[in-house]
Amino acid sequence: SLGAASQEQDTSRDAAGLRSMSSVTIPPPACMLRPLEAPLRYLFGPGPSNVPPRVLAAGGRPIIGHLHPEMYEIMNDIKKGIQYAFQTENNMTISMSGSGHAAMECAVFNTVEPGESVLVAINGIWGERVAEIAERMGANVHRMVKTPGGYFTNKEIEQAMQKHKPVLFFLTHGESSAGLCHPIDGIGDICRKHDCLFLVDTVASLGAAPIFMDKQNIDILYTGSQKALNAPPGTAPISFNDRACHKMFNRKTKPVSYLFDMTHLSNYWGCDGKPARAYHHTGPVSGFFALRESLAILAERVKRYTSTFSVILQKKYTDLRLPSVTTIAIPKGYDWREMLAYIMKHHQMEMTGGLGPSIGMVMRIGLMGYNCEKSNADMALHALADALKNCRKSKA
Amino acid sequence: SLGAASQEQDTSRDAAGLRSMSSVTIPPPACMLRPLEAPLRYLFGPGPSNVPPRVLAAGGRPIIGHLHPEMYEIMNDIKKGIQYAFQTENNMTISMSGSGHAAMECAVFNTVEPGESVLVAINGIWGERVAEIAERMGANVHRMVKTPGGYFTNKEIEQAMQKHKPVLFFLTHGESSAGLCHPIDGIGDICRKHDCLFLVDTVASLGAAPIFMDKQNIDILYTGSQKALNAPPGTAPISFNDRACHKMFNRKTKPVSYLFDMTHLSNYWGCDGKPARAYHHTGPVSGFFALRESLAILAERVKRYTSTFSVILQKKYTDLRLPSVTTIAIPKGYDWREMLAYIMKHHQMEMTGGLGPSIGMVMRIGLMGYNCEKSNADMALHALADALKNCRKSKA
Repeated sequence: SLGAASQEQDTSRDAAGLRSMSSVTIPPPACMLRPLEAPLRYLFGPGPSNVPPRVLAAGGRPIIGHLHPEMYEIMNDIKKGIQYAFQTENNMTISMSGSGHAAMECAVFNTVEPGESVLVAINGIWGERVAEIAERMGANVHRMVKTPGGYFTNKEIEQAMQKHKPVLFFLTHGESSAGLCHPIDGIGDICRKHDCLFLVDTVASLGAAPIFMDKQNIDILYTGSQKALNAPPGTAPISFNDRACHKMFNRKTKPVSYLFDMTHLSNYWGCDGKPARAYHHTGPVSGFFALRESLAILAERVKRYTSTFSVILQKKYTDLRLPSVTTIAIPKGYDWREMLAYIMKHHQMEMTGGLGPSIGMVMRIGLMGYNCEKSNADMALHALADALKNCRKSKA
Repeated sequence: SLGAASQEQDTSRDAAGLRSMSSVTIPPPACMLRPLEAPLRYLFGPGPSNVPPRVLAAGGRPIIGHLHPEMYEIMNDIKKGIQYAFQTENNMTISMSGSGHAAMECAVFNTVEPGESVLVAINGIWGERVAEIAERMGANVHRMVKTPGGYFTNKEIEQAMQKHKPVLFFLTHGESSAGLCHPIDGIGDICRKHDCLFLVDTVASLGAAPIFMDKQNIDILYTGSQKALNAPPGTAPISFNDRACHKMFNRKTKPVSYLFDMTHLSNYWGCDGKPARAYHHTGPVSGFFALRESLAILAERVKRYTSTFSVILQKKYTDLRLPSVTTIAIPKGYDWREMLAYIMKHHQMEMTGGLGPSIGMVMRIGLMGYNCEKSNADMALHALADALKNCRKSKA
């Protein structure tokens, strides 16, 4: 069709770029004439956490192209950094160009086909999310449900597996809505025995509570960038072992999402053994710079999260306590919303309420990675004490 | 289940965070002890483009929480900025937490139900992508195909619409693989007449070639952040008018993706009229800071792209030339790969080859937004002339 266009359509010049600016009817918005304002905050909620200067600086560097050789090197570094953080030798290890939910959908979309059985352990919000995601793409979803903060015994899991014969079993390692760190040992073996893939969410726990993907026979593991890794939100490490790869690369149907299709993502990340990487989508270059640095800090420090925050208020909400996010029962007679607003206003500090099923049951305080210092824990305790003193307390 | 956990399972302490570090078998990777390296480049390809210092600085600022009131203000600013850039008053105007492909999937997933008819105009790579996305979610896809650089007359479009009765018609405004800017006028009216939604991709054209969403009766419009807007990749503005909202909020089935479900995204962006925004996913805070500034620059300058790049090599590949990305026919007797490698090596400058169906047919040069200066055009021409002089030329 070379050269044919101008002969066929005489209005082309207008549409192609020479239209008069008199067509502009929406004026420039006044709000954009104000400078960008973003206050400095202590991010002591369940994430995002504060980003250290080195990681911020990386995210603010001049960018390069998403397909430049230097970008591939940075992506290779990220892959190695994730392998270390996950304690895995899996070749199929990448970062999503999106938040933890992108990893969640990627895991389910690629390893499950419509009509297949999926077993989901629900003891907070994350299992609910995965169940909904799996249902939307046509899986036959079976739910095991506990109240927030409850956990599942290996025996309960095996019994449900025998009954529902799932191709995928989902469990949340760090249930941030309940502040629970779920035991993992032995579950991978049960999944192997029943020919089921073991998918684990460590968004709120990675870098805070130990996880050993290979040793614990986890088939698919993902996390987010904005918790204990202290990078800005927008990237999400994920890894698949050979069992998971075998299932997802031998399917009959295509995954419902082109963007999250591991056939393409594995090529983009140089994991498929092909000599060249083809264009699939444009990755978040600045986000990858920042993620690379956050993983580098983890590799350099070999300092895993150690909890410095001791709970002084009331009783703990759960005994299997997640080190990164501490849930505390709401002090009797206080309005949790008022306490949180007071702490934000007077201490520039974010703490949060519950999430999903734990709303109204707990307050949540996160000290993750870079934020995990005794001075910060002292500051958080001081803010809580101040709120207890100054917020209204009912007589009840 | 409060307090019951420790009674039921005695191995919980190990799994919950007290396991010995002797379980670490994957050592910290040596590559992470090297500093991050990203060279300075002239990004004169079809995107991403160079990011101006003000936008980089915004992306490198300390972050705030994704649900803080100040973040909502920034998101409100982004919404207004997009409304201006798109020339629309649509309330349902947001940014995706992902690249242009996320917007592409969001548009299709939300407005189409399985079994419904979709008509896709293909004259380069982007129509192919949308057709594949629609097929994966179960749509009945009909393709109108032209060679790269070809375009569709309104008559051809109406005839296909009469034949296939689609609920959605897709057209690429800026076909960056072919360098074509497609005429838009009149097509929206045809779509209304046939009760079909008009979806337009302006990833490569927004801010470079005029587009008027409301006046041109475009029902769904999206773009990317990393082209003429000069923000880092990772966010993607999208807008739906009332017709599109009516279709997507009155569907019988849920969209296949929870992450891209506009029911949730419209709430997250404060577009659904509800008093509170609920947690859905964690948006890319730094990416939104940067996008806000890039839209502010657009609003301040009221300077739309004017092409300063004149083509001196051979003939132009298409007459409906896209101002942001110039496709040039490959100079006779030259190896385009060698020329591009030479220009990258000796001029630190990215230009690219074709994409998808235009591979081997064209070279592509983009001067977008911030990069669109005469001095840059001169530099690009100088680099091309140098490559023509120093790369091998066959006798053919």
